[in-house]
Amino acid sequence: MTDFSSVAMMRQNTLRRVLREILLRGPISRAELARITGVSKPTMSEVFRELEEDGWVQVSGRRQGKVGRSAMVYSVAPQRALVFGADVGGTKIRAALVDMTGEIVAETVVATEPSGGDFVVAQIADLADDLAREADVGRSRILAGTIGLPGAFDAATGRLMMVPNIEGLEGSAIRDRLEARLGFSVSIGNDVNMAAKGEQWRGAGAGLSSFAFIALGTGIGMGVINENRILSGARGAAGEIATLPVGADPYDSRTFRSGALETAVGSAAIKDRYEALGGERDLDVRRIIDRLSEDDHRAARVLDEVARCVGAAILAVCAVVDPARVILGGSIGSRQEVLSRVRMAVAGCMPAPPSITISQLGSRAGLLGTLAEGSENLWNELFEADGDSGLVRQRAGGEAGEVA
Amino acid sequence: MTDFSSVAMMRQNTLRRVLREILLRGPISRAELARITGVSKPTMSEVFRELEEDGWVQVSGRRQGKVGRSAMVYSVAPQRALVFGADVGGTKIRAALVDMTGEIVAETVVATEPSGGDFVVAQIADLADDLAREADVGRSRILAGTIGLPGAFDAATGRLMMVPNIEGLEGSAIRDRLEARLGFSVSIGNDVNMAAKGEQWRGAGAGLSSFAFIALGTGIGMGVINENRILSGARGAAGEIATLPVGADPYDSRTFRSGALETAVGSAAIKDRYEALGGERDLDVRRIIDRLSEDDHRAARVLDEVARCVGAAILAVCAVVDPARVILGGSIGSRQEVLSRVRMAVAGCMPAPPSITISQLGSRAGLLGTLAEGSENLWNELFEADGDSGLVRQRAGGEAGEVA
Amino acid sequence: MTDFSSVAMMRQNTLRRVLREILLRGPISRAELARITGVSKPTMSEVFRELEEDGWVQVSGRRQGKVGRSAMVYSVAPQRALVFGADVGGTKIRAALVDMTGEIVAETVVATEPSGGDFVVAQIADLADDLAREADVGRSRILAGTIGLPGAFDAATGRLMMVPNIEGLEGSAIRDRLEARLGFSVSIGNDVNMAAKGEQWRGAGAGLSSFAFIALGTGIGMGVINENRILSGARGAAGEIATLPVGADPYDSRTFRSGALETAVGSAAIKDRYEALGGERDLDVRRIIDRLSEDDHRAARVLDEVARCVGAAILAVCAVVDPARVILGGSIGSRQEVLSRVRMAVAGCMPAPPSITISQLGSRAGLLGTLAEGSENLWNELFEADGDSGLVRQRAGGEAGEVA
Amino acid sequence: MTDFSSVAMMRQNTLRRVLREILLRGPISRAELARITGVSKPTMSEVFRELEEDGWVQVSGRRQGKVGRSAMVYSVAPQRALVFGADVGGTKIRAALVDMTGEIVAETVVATEPSGGDFVVAQIADLADDLAREADVGRSRILAGTIGLPGAFDAATGRLMMVPNIEGLEGSAIRDRLEARLGFSVSIGNDVNMAAKGEQWRGAGAGLSSFAFIALGTGIGMGVINENRILSGARGAAGEIATLPVGADPYDSRTFRSGALETAVGSAAIKDRYEALGGERDLDVRRIIDRLSEDDHRAARVLDEVARCVGAAILAVCAVVDPARVILGGSIGSRQEVLSRVRMAVAGCMPAPPSITISQLGSRAGLLGTLAEGSENLWNELFEADGDSGLVRQRAGGEAGEVA
Repeated sequence: MTDFSSVAMMRQNTLRRVLREILLRGPISRAELARITGVSKPTMSEVFRELEEDGWVQVSGRRQGKVGRSAMVYSVAPQRALVFGADVGGTKIRAALVDMTGEIVAETVVATEPSGGDFVVAQIADLADDLAREADVGRSRILAGTIGLPGAFDAATGRLMMVPNIEGLEGSAIRDRLEARLGFSVSIGNDVNMAAKGEQWRGAGAGLSSFAFIALGTGIGMGVINENRILSGARGAAGEIATLPVGADPYDSRTFRSGALETAVGSAAIKDRYEALGGERDLDVRRIIDRLSEDDHRAARVLDEVARCVGAAILAVCAVVDPARVILGGSIGSRQEVLSRVRMAVAGCMPAPPSITISQLGSRAGLLGTLAEGSENLWNELFEADGDSGLVRQRAGGEAGEVA
Repeated sequence: MTDFSSVAMMRQNTLRRVLREILLRGPISRAELARITGVSKPTMSEVFRELEEDGWVQVSGRRQGKVGRSAMVYSVAPQRALVFGADVGGTKIRAALVDMTGEIVAETVVATEPSGGDFVVAQIADLADDLAREADVGRSRILAGTIGLPGAFDAATGRLMMVPNIEGLEGSAIRDRLEARLGFSVSIGNDVNMAAKGEQWRGAGAGLSSFAFIALGTGIGMGVINENRILSGARGAAGEIATLPVGADPYDSRTFRSGALETAVGSAAIKDRYEALGGERDLDVRRIIDRLSEDDHRAARVLDEVARCVGAAILAVCAVVDPARVILGGSIGSRQEVLSRVRMAVAGCMPAPPSITISQLGSRAGLLGTLAEGSENLWNELFEADGDSGLVRQRAGGEAGEVA
Repeated sequence: MTDFSSVAMMRQNTLRRVLREILLRGPISRAELARITGVSKPTMSEVFRELEEDGWVQVSGRRQGKVGRSAMVYSVAPQRALVFGADVGGTKIRAALVDMTGEIVAETVVATEPSGGDFVVAQIADLADDLAREADVGRSRILAGTIGLPGAFDAATGRLMMVPNIEGLEGSAIRDRLEARLGFSVSIGNDVNMAAKGEQWRGAGAGLSSFAFIALGTGIGMGVINENRILSGARGAAGEIATLPVGADPYDSRTFRSGALETAVGSAAIKDRYEALGGERDLDVRRIIDRLSEDDHRAARVLDEVARCVGAAILAVCAVVDPARVILGGSIGSRQEVLSRVRMAVAGCMPAPPSITISQLGSRAGLLGTLAEGSENLWNELFEADGDSGLVRQRAGGEAGEVA
Repeated sequence: MTDFSSVAMMRQNTLRRVLREILLRGPISRAELARITGVSKPTMSEVFRELEEDGWVQVSGRRQGKVGRSAMVYSVAPQRALVFGADVGGTKIRAALVDMTGEIVAETVVATEPSGGDFVVAQIADLADDLAREADVGRSRILAGTIGLPGAFDAATGRLMMVPNIEGLEGSAIRDRLEARLGFSVSIGNDVNMAAKGEQWRGAGAGLSSFAFIALGTGIGMGVINENRILSGARGAAGEIATLPVGADPYDSRTFRSGALETAVGSAAIKDRYEALGGERDLDVRRIIDRLSEDDHRAARVLDEVARCVGAAILAVCAVVDPARVILGGSIGSRQEVLSRVRMAVAGCMPAPPSITISQLGSRAGLLGTLAEGSENLWNELFEADGDSGLVRQRAGGEAGEVA
């Protein structure tokens, strides 16, 4: 490392330290910043010049000091850096932009391109453009993004596996394709893991360092937050609980590929069960659950059965990862009628059951998780990484030198 | 923070940085150290004076330089800091001391004090003394220790729960009791988690960041290493897979407290099964497994059944945490006859099974895990923690100032 | 066959026909009998002489005829032929004598000889003597008997197999031993089959030609009446439903000999379940069931589980033998609390469940069955058999000639 | 009853007795018959005149007597009375005529009328006509018939219930409809019961009084012969083992109507299992079993699973009816590959398994059973019934008087 670059690095590090403190403590005066960071007055002036010039910092008011003088206080310009998040499902894509203070500045939901593959990749890129327009910010202000997708993203191979309901993504180097189109750094997350992350950020997992989020809808999946980190597993397949040995014999050939639990719960299973009892055919699952309020004994029985399967699955999850809480989500899991039954079932198989609640974010959980994840990634890029950061990468050529 | 302390802190930080580099790169010369750390020559002299005076560093030889001059090279004095580890089981305690280079300098195994509680605590303290004597090092050189215990250690409450086979430890603030007796900082780990840690350090988990260690003996338990960290769970009960819904209906009252899987596998279950088939009574489990080689069809059937239960348990574990490998340990799990059957069972319920192997460390796995864990703790205390470290705590009064 | 014996046979046959009609239609006059049987007046006189002389028939009154004359009417002397029945259980023996009109003339209950084997055989013989004394009839008037025993009586080999709770009877030629001691013809029946027979005779099976009686107490067993006959099976083991594949995996080694259903229900299972839930230890099963009225949720859960097992067993029984009704008996099966739960369970697994009721005879069902069975045997011996009958065998030497 | 009819009855009874003996003992001379029956010479002459005139008896040869004279010997004319049998399946009808000696004189197989109901009834009637023509006997010589049908024939209501695969027969008073079209007395039997009967008559059940025949093909069903009688149950549904609690939880809503065992075995289940393991799609079950010889591990696994279910079903059947043997039939059950696996499975769940063999009659078992059943019915009508018999009914007006 040359002396020159080492000086540049030092300046950049100082610049980061100051920016970090403004973000964490702002509005704040220069004097306070100097005291905290130990940065000398002249350097601080230089730093502020750069930060203001580059749009990171803005004056946010004036504060009366102790000795009668008032001081200007500064904040980070919230929209200087935006994070893009998208939760891509088989039928819908939810996408949003969040600013540096965590405020969502634009949000949308569209139908997923049925052609899958590159069409979906293109669709995601268009959404980023649309949202920037909607929020009235420059597209280049989007510095990072996270995309939630069904399936297991194997970080080692960079490939998405086990994608159940979007064509043309299985085995794909999806992250590279997305970064190429979006022009900012992208991370990929499993959709249910993202929902767990979302619940931790602003939902039923707030304040918890270890909990599980179980999504029960068309199928069943789980995201686990363990010591504040998403549990991914060796191949990104942690939480794929469709195969849990619950509800059927795991050695029965019929569940070998589909998964024992998956065949026992979820929309298709609920409809099958209801019809097998002689219930009305082709009824929507939502409607079957609604019938509980009409004292439909078939619906009650079906839900009891599903709840017992989910209860045993929760038992298995607790045996392996010991979460402080289990949050139920998904179109079926979010129903109060399901929650009460699952709680009863769990009480029947666990002497010391965990707290069980319903998702607070509903269908937006996954999206909020991508925003939280993307924001964390950006923070790490800006403030934790050594040396050359994404912040610098963003800015082309000579400019980078100025910032650093 | 006063200026004085801030200077002391800077000196201490410098001292740490130098020591860290000697440990990581030694034998190394002062010149090389200065180049790497950017520490000036006078400061380096001062640092070396302190490190040598305090016994951390020793001359380990002389190296021929490029320009004909030879330079002295330095290493860390391995036994300046020792770590104590003990794996406390219902019948035996294994204990050892490991030095800073990872070499075990003394090791022993004794019968567990049957009276339990304080007797076991005292026994552990005596073991530390004995080992120090045996290694011929000062007792005060033991700077940290880790104790592996059956049960779940809830870090939040500091209490040990669910202790199956040692009296007087359930609900105990065991860490405080041990630190009071041992005089150095102690961490507590679940015995099976420690075994997993041991396998990662020097066994079948070497090089793996995510894997599961399943101990099958009297009972069944699991330790998971996930992204290089022990998976503990919210209450320290992660991996308590005795309750997995496998081998019996989890809603059956008879498995409500004992756990479905626990009643289906383990020594008692194997004996029950063997006798229920009309096999010889009161036969030791080891002997029952031995009989496989005598074409005992009852033994074969019993082992097949147990393997199917273990196989379904592995399926459940993979569904939740997706390990890259499953290592079988414990008196039963370590048997080749069991491994081959479990592999066959897993192939029958998982289309893409994980690698499954046997523990390489056998009954020493847990002990080695405590040594690894203790060494990591010490490293963190010495080199990662901010400000006042255990290293400093170790040294009383004015001495601390000298080191820092 | 000589002419002489053929005439004797004809006379005996005539005698039987007349006796049969008196038994079925009495009180009845000689004239009516002559009209019905076509027996000539002189032969009828001869027949009556013999029947009266031998004590079979007695004048029971006088009836006003159509044309003013009154006629004597005759009935069978009820106590001319008695039938002995005994229901032999592990702890108690119930025994009784029944006369030709079906009236029980003496009945007793004693503790089973704990020494088993010949001691029990002798005890049964003593009971026959005691009952005859109590009823004040000649011991020789007991012409037949039926003994109900636990286990399967294999008529082909004449041996009693699978005797769970009386020593010294397994594999025994029990019928020969009993006939040798009792001095009259004896038939052996399974105790639960006898209870089914008793319920058909005078209990909840009255008027039904096909039903099942399930005894649930210490263990579980079943007697089936099919087209008015006891279903025995090829080796007398029909109804041994302890082995039904219900409540546990029938391929699990632990149920290989004991039977899956047997391990899931019955007194021991109920106690195990109750205690496994944390219920009071060493509580009598009767008391556990009583606790339902005290809102003991553990007792409720245990009974629900047992009822589900019994319900699935009833499903299996219906699939195989299609009974019109299932009668629950035994100390546990007779409880109203169990009945209501079993009905609910059955409704959950059978779209068209059979009628399910409780035994009307309680602990006397088996005894009454032996009396019914013995009476039928005697009837067949007297009136259905060709040639030399037990009736004739009873009467020694020359007398036989007289009767015939 | 008038004197006249009573004389007629006596003559008819005599005629029957003689005919019975000729049938049982023929060829036989008049003198021998007289000796056996005690019928006087003149009466015997009269009886022979009538029997010959009516075609029942024919001279079958001449036998050398003891004292030099030869005597004519008589036999029953085999085709004087024929019995019609038909085994009606969802796709095929097998039908045949059997004569009085048990010889099948005509047999055919046709596709079942797909329109069902009355079309099938008409088709059966046509088959009787066709077979009579083929055998070259008068249609009026068919005196009785038995029709085997899928479903449960409730003798009490005269209705056929639970007919799985022929339209328009459910709930039908099928016997009345058939008798109206066929013009002779008809009995209805369940097709699998008939197969059991057939196996007892001329197959793997010959000589056994108690055994079970399990048909495993599209679905699963059972016929039990108990003490030489078909076990029918209260509503004709005995042996409907599709609902046995084997292979799935009987309380699972999905098996509530279809039956747990039915969903686990049979053609559809085998195909499902094979495909779920990744096997070739839309393969015929016969072909899947064939693949065992090509070491197809998927086929082997599927068959093992099916065999375990069948094995547990056999366990249940033995627990309830204790058969001496279990005969496997049906397109799947008749396969040697299935037999060997079922035997192995049964050895794994029963310490004392029954003998298990394969059907000897294959797809003709049911037909042969109807012929045996019809022949028995005819025998009873001719020789066991009191008073007015079908034999008499057959012969119109004055003729009847002459015979009687």
